[in-house]
Amino acid sequence: KGDIVVVSHSIVSIVEGSLYTLSEVAPTEKANEIASKQNEEHTAQRIEVALREASEVIREEPILITRTHHGMVTDFSGVDESNAPDGQLIVLPRDPDATARRISENISKKAGFNISVIITDTQGRPWRRGAVNLAIGVAGMSPFVKNEGRKDIYEKVLRSSLVCVADEIAASAELVMGQADEKVPIAIVRGITPNDTSGSAHEILREESENLFQ
Amino acid sequence: KGDIVVVSHSIVSIVEGSLYTLSEVAPTEKANEIASKQNEEHTAQRIEVALREASEVIREEPILITRTHHGMVTDFSGVDESNAPDGQLIVLPRDPDATARRISENISKKAGFNISVIITDTQGRPWRRGAVNLAIGVAGMSPFVKNEGRKDIYEKVLRSSLVCVADEIAASAELVMGQADEKVPIAIVRGITPNDTSGSAHEILREESENLFQ
Repeated sequence: KGDIVVVSHSIVSIVEGSLYTLSEVAPTEKANEIASKQNEEHTAQRIEVALREASEVIREEPILITRTHHGMVTDFSGVDESNAPDGQLIVLPRDPDATARRISENISKKAGFNISVIITDTQGRPWRRGAVNLAIGVAGMSPFVKNEGRKDIYEKVLRSSLVCVADEIAASAELVMGQADEKVPIAIVRGITPNDTSGSAHEILREESENLFQ
Repeated sequence: KGDIVVVSHSIVSIVEGSLYTLSEVAPTEKANEIASKQNEEHTAQRIEVALREASEVIREEPILITRTHHGMVTDFSGVDESNAPDGQLIVLPRDPDATARRISENISKKAGFNISVIITDTQGRPWRRGAVNLAIGVAGMSPFVKNEGRKDIYEKVLRSSLVCVADEIAASAELVMGQADEKVPIAIVRGITPNDTSGSAHEILREESENLFQ
């Protein structure tokens, strides 16, 4: 009890077929145009796939930032070359919350108690260098801990304090999962008992109207 | 060996006197004007202190986002009411990298081997709801793991993959440190041996020219 299963999206995407075969991806003029502004080579196909996976282009350079069809704002729509099978590109799972729910329900039934599941992707951040692992699918727990109404050490009541524990758990799991040839697509985080057994990663995404830095 | 000491900035700020006494803070007209646009009450003094701690105001509403004198982009310049001694506000430590270095050097000397130190603050993010703990001071380790040049499971060489492990370690520590009356200002993260014993949190901050979302 209290185990949280953290699953890298790569393995979910491969199993679910969220892949593009490079030989079948012909970059459009738009993709080529954006690629010509990038520093890296050979990204026109990745950009083409990223555009197909995007609902909105946030910016084109120095790297492509999009909003995906899930509403996530990320670089290259999360399209990955690393750990993709030869000649393919990995994209984000179609509905990571639904996959997390399915996995959580299946293993919770076998275990006889609730086991939370977090599906992750390692993404860049606006103001800070280096990527960190984030929760893109959540089931069996709320992604948040609400501290509002609790007291601090001086007995003052906290006004608004919302912590995204799902992202913190995802980040901690990356420390053992890695990004290269570690071959650890799943991590188990132990000792955290969620105070809620329902929730989704979709709740983490800010509405466009709430975006603070746009 | 391999221990990383994670310290909440609150305790550092209190020890170093990075505090403002509320009775001595008279909000300027500017602070009152910004406060009138905020949803919360009683924030004019917090805004006044945030403005004093800022080198640049990024936006004023719906909440105040600034760049601090350290170059961090955060809400309210990191000015905190929770866990501040009665009648005071906690601000970020003046030079968290220097404090981390001092702590790391002192305990490493006693231990006889390198012990890395991370000073943290829990901050909001542009596109995602809920705050997460981040590294604002780092010593005895690089904040990054560079995967560039490593191979993935298909033997493909990774092109650019930079992971901010310092932020991931900070995030994992918050899971035991908490935000309210947990009284756990220090956590020890075990089992990670940094491949570098020098580095700073300042390296994590993007230059203004590199900001991807501005």
